[in-house]
Amino acid sequence: MSILETINSSADIKTLSRAELHELCAELRRFEIESIARTGGHLASNLGAVELTVAIHRVYDTSRDRLIFDVGHQSYTHKIITGRQDAFHTLRQRGGISGFPKPNESGDDAFIAGHASTSVAAALGMARARTLQNEDYDVVAVIGDGALTGGLAYEGLCNAAASEEPVVIILNDNNMSISENVGGMARMLQFLRMRPGYINFKKWFRSVSSHTQHIYEFVHRTKEKLKSWILPSNVFSDMGLYYLGPVDGHDVEKLENAIRLAKDLERPVLLHVLTRKGKGCPYAEAHPDKYHGVGPFDAATGELAPAGTCFSDKVGEYLCQYAEHDARIVVITAAMAGGTGTECFAAKFPKRFFDVGIAEGSAVTMAGAMAKQGLVPVFAVYSSFLQRSLDMMIHDVALLNLHVVFCVDRAGLVGSDGETHQGLFDISYLGSVPGMTVLAPGSFDELREMIGYALHSVSGPVAVRYPRGGEGRYTDCHICAESVLREGGDITVVCCGTMVNEALDAADKLAVQGISAEVVKLGILFPNTYEQCLASLKKTGRLLAVEEVCAAGCIGRRILEACAESDLHLNAVSLLNLGDGIIPHGTVPELRHDYGIDADAILRCATELCGRDMVES
Amino acid sequence: MSILETINSSADIKTLSRAELHELCAELRRFEIESIARTGGHLASNLGAVELTVAIHRVYDTSRDRLIFDVGHQSYTHKIITGRQDAFHTLRQRGGISGFPKPNESGDDAFIAGHASTSVAAALGMARARTLQNEDYDVVAVIGDGALTGGLAYEGLCNAAASEEPVVIILNDNNMSISENVGGMARMLQFLRMRPGYINFKKWFRSVSSHTQHIYEFVHRTKEKLKSWILPSNVFSDMGLYYLGPVDGHDVEKLENAIRLAKDLERPVLLHVLTRKGKGCPYAEAHPDKYHGVGPFDAATGELAPAGTCFSDKVGEYLCQYAEHDARIVVITAAMAGGTGTECFAAKFPKRFFDVGIAEGSAVTMAGAMAKQGLVPVFAVYSSFLQRSLDMMIHDVALLNLHVVFCVDRAGLVGSDGETHQGLFDISYLGSVPGMTVLAPGSFDELREMIGYALHSVSGPVAVRYPRGGEGRYTDCHICAESVLREGGDITVVCCGTMVNEALDAADKLAVQGISAEVVKLGILFPNTYEQCLASLKKTGRLLAVEEVCAAGCIGRRILEACAESDLHLNAVSLLNLGDGIIPHGTVPELRHDYGIDADAILRCATELCGRDMVES
Repeated sequence: MSILETINSSADIKTLSRAELHELCAELRRFEIESIARTGGHLASNLGAVELTVAIHRVYDTSRDRLIFDVGHQSYTHKIITGRQDAFHTLRQRGGISGFPKPNESGDDAFIAGHASTSVAAALGMARARTLQNEDYDVVAVIGDGALTGGLAYEGLCNAAASEEPVVIILNDNNMSISENVGGMARMLQFLRMRPGYINFKKWFRSVSSHTQHIYEFVHRTKEKLKSWILPSNVFSDMGLYYLGPVDGHDVEKLENAIRLAKDLERPVLLHVLTRKGKGCPYAEAHPDKYHGVGPFDAATGELAPAGTCFSDKVGEYLCQYAEHDARIVVITAAMAGGTGTECFAAKFPKRFFDVGIAEGSAVTMAGAMAKQGLVPVFAVYSSFLQRSLDMMIHDVALLNLHVVFCVDRAGLVGSDGETHQGLFDISYLGSVPGMTVLAPGSFDELREMIGYALHSVSGPVAVRYPRGGEGRYTDCHICAESVLREGGDITVVCCGTMVNEALDAADKLAVQGISAEVVKLGILFPNTYEQCLASLKKTGRLLAVEEVCAAGCIGRRILEACAESDLHLNAVSLLNLGDGIIPHGTVPELRHDYGIDADAILRCATELCGRDMVES
Repeated sequence: MSILETINSSADIKTLSRAELHELCAELRRFEIESIARTGGHLASNLGAVELTVAIHRVYDTSRDRLIFDVGHQSYTHKIITGRQDAFHTLRQRGGISGFPKPNESGDDAFIAGHASTSVAAALGMARARTLQNEDYDVVAVIGDGALTGGLAYEGLCNAAASEEPVVIILNDNNMSISENVGGMARMLQFLRMRPGYINFKKWFRSVSSHTQHIYEFVHRTKEKLKSWILPSNVFSDMGLYYLGPVDGHDVEKLENAIRLAKDLERPVLLHVLTRKGKGCPYAEAHPDKYHGVGPFDAATGELAPAGTCFSDKVGEYLCQYAEHDARIVVITAAMAGGTGTECFAAKFPKRFFDVGIAEGSAVTMAGAMAKQGLVPVFAVYSSFLQRSLDMMIHDVALLNLHVVFCVDRAGLVGSDGETHQGLFDISYLGSVPGMTVLAPGSFDELREMIGYALHSVSGPVAVRYPRGGEGRYTDCHICAESVLREGGDITVVCCGTMVNEALDAADKLAVQGISAEVVKLGILFPNTYEQCLASLKKTGRLLAVEEVCAAGCIGRRILEACAESDLHLNAVSLLNLGDGIIPHGTVPELRHDYGIDADAILRCATELCGRDMVES
């Protein structure tokens, strides 16, 4: 029996010998590589955090102490340690365990994660709750250096430092976020990494001076003053955090000692740990960004299953084409050059490409200012991450009606990343940004034409939203506001983007049932007077609007308003969408099916609206 | 003729003698105090920035160089200098000049401002546009130490530092934001303020070494290495910014020299300037937070016109009452204890009150974590500033259905602060947060009961939204989801919050016209099945929903959906709201009138929907 098989909680880790700890780390690595090779998932970041996670469980009991991961895709070791080893083969599968920390999945997951830079503020909130309620659990956050580029992390650090709350913030510094790290904070970490082993002095010092608290406090103050003369200060200690490190993040004993020291200091501590992404797996160590988030692969060689062409790839290709002929075009990313397909733009136009770090707010404000001065900035960003920028879109772009182009990637269901990453809110928040135009291509050709339209034919803020993955049966190109893809007299099915494939499939099936559906595809979601929809509805009297978005702000409601304004009375209405927008992980087809927006759901709903019973085909 | 009267642009400042500069600053101060005493406006921050602004105009030409203010309420001196002296008596009045920088008002206003922490990212965007387009204008940002508590500023600084773009960031450090400054960054600035006059060394050094660029570069590198041994580093230089300062912010010559040096360095520079809020006006210097934003006052004594009781005052009072009996309740503010009326809570329950700085995102994430651990956190925040937290509301609160209470102040029109501050988007963005309950009191008594309901009867995220100012004719208390305030058979007028006063006034006027309006007040905006509305609409067949919000996400659309789902056909529909939500400054009654949501507008619209001609009364 392996050691790993005996581990079901923090408590099981605490009884292991040194040799067993080392063996456990090796077993964890093998287990993760083999399992992720089958399911896909986040590889490199988890391999880098094996020793760190084991060391945390040596010191803390995560069933009562609160361990908060930042972003959370590095929490696999934690999941395996805390009773989810047997379920690990279901990772990111429908009904299986999540690829991110999830309190609803386990009491050992203290808080939700998925978006970056939240952990410090969350840890501080828990530490304050603990203190106010006179409880005695510990609170520890694990944040990567990439997440430190986000302002939310800085806000958390400023407040944690001033709070005097006992809380340990472990900086898991692998010198990259998903791709290479950027900006001033990266520079500061560079300095710190080169510092001598200050920790040894601290440990020694503490061991001799901790006998009496009184002496300790006095000497601590003196030492702090001395330190400011001898050692260069750093941003963390300047803020008021007690800085420890850097510590070798693959030496489990050193880590355990450092974490124990940090815990015992009983104040806000930043523990700086140096790790290597992909550690122990040659191909992942060599190409950590390639093996950040992956589909299934060959565990021995690292060979990845080939991926089809996706909208993101095409966005990069088309932006390069347009930029060739228009020097005003620049591209901005928030640490997602790979994910958004804009790496090729960075390679071709390095001076016109800007990676701001995980700083979506800053990206939008900067884009607004660039547009004000005559550039045409394109911000390529995931739908769920652009939620960070609502205020900047309104305040720094829309109030001046500036021409900023948003390439909104991962719009709609994203699949295996699950609820934190689903792009279901953009139609709602983009719809509230004054003067915003939103375009939704259903095919690659439409994507190309719509990006061109956004770059050259719109004068204010404009978004092109497209899903994860590639195109389906619909490969035509209609970039008008509305287009009737199929004529019919019984019911009007309104759709946009790649949901057009579900609508066309449904129309085929409805024809078998003797129901003639008119399929209207929206190319421009708004502004739009929905004239073709209204014309179709005048004919059919029945509306079925099917959308891969949350109910709030859905286009169906806008069409109902247009009907009301036109005194158009409908006989039957159904707005199919994803309700409150909380949708777990699974494949996109599974989720469309489960949440009732696929072709079968359209078929059922349309049949009902037409007052027919379904005929078995 | 005063010197001030001769000033119409940056150019006019440049020709003044030293003595004239001093006299100009004194004249500006007198002019501002006297003018703001009549119009109201931001007093203390502008008095603190007089010399700084004059010095900037000595060095730069704001008609082509780009001067970007952060928040922007300290831009009065700039406005007066750049041709808006004669219009200054119209400050913040309908049709008059804005209290914030506004490019549509003057080409000397480089960018919009109103929300905090945007200036560095905006300046960087402009600097990059300048360089890419081979233009040669300068870019300079002025940011207060308060705005540095916002993560957006940190993101901007990290990127500016790494950019190598020539850009000057002037830190206007008065050791407070609107009230006292908090957190780790405040601590760091404290250190810097105590540093010796490093600038003098730099000036001397530069004067002797600038003869040949080659020597300068070599010696600069050597000096930087030396500096890191002799002088403690600071966060700005660690990031890679060239740090200059601190400089006395009320010595116009020293300022001019320092700004000129910063400009000539042709790299990202942070110039640290120490100023005093309210400078030169005894009562404003003594109480800078009291004289931050004020209504009219006595210029000689500073005596403020008495203000009526407002919803914000009542919020503080009621929260104290509830907290007395429930130890789980804690209150969070983002540097707005005064504005949100929660100062009394801070005084009464100091350990249960948390000011996070201008960090709305961090406030929400922290609140989510507190709720997860069993506290009942209340975040009191302005509607337009909560736009910063959409992602955190979804990700850190709603996905776990955590019980966080949002007291959304300044919801609806705010009046004289204008377009950047209008609270017109919250119904839309709150409406997209999964599981969010939104309550809208129309009176103080309803506010008290609804806060109680939010604290004790809701289990997930819940917002209570209320306007700037106080209650009107409606002082009753109905906290049900819907209440029929007045019965009628011709038309259903749906309203919420203090818009109930306009609806009731309109109903009175409609009665004179022989039209009987049923007034339905919504207490719970959502979730709500709108049964009373539907029942009323079944009777009247006509819907007029009047809302002080932007069109996107308005409740009227939700009611139309409910009608469609109930197969209820309406004969006439009008949704009165504030369209795209860009509304300039003016008084609330003026704006309600101008944008068609006051009693007269309801009267006109209802008369038309009922197919009648208006009878002259």
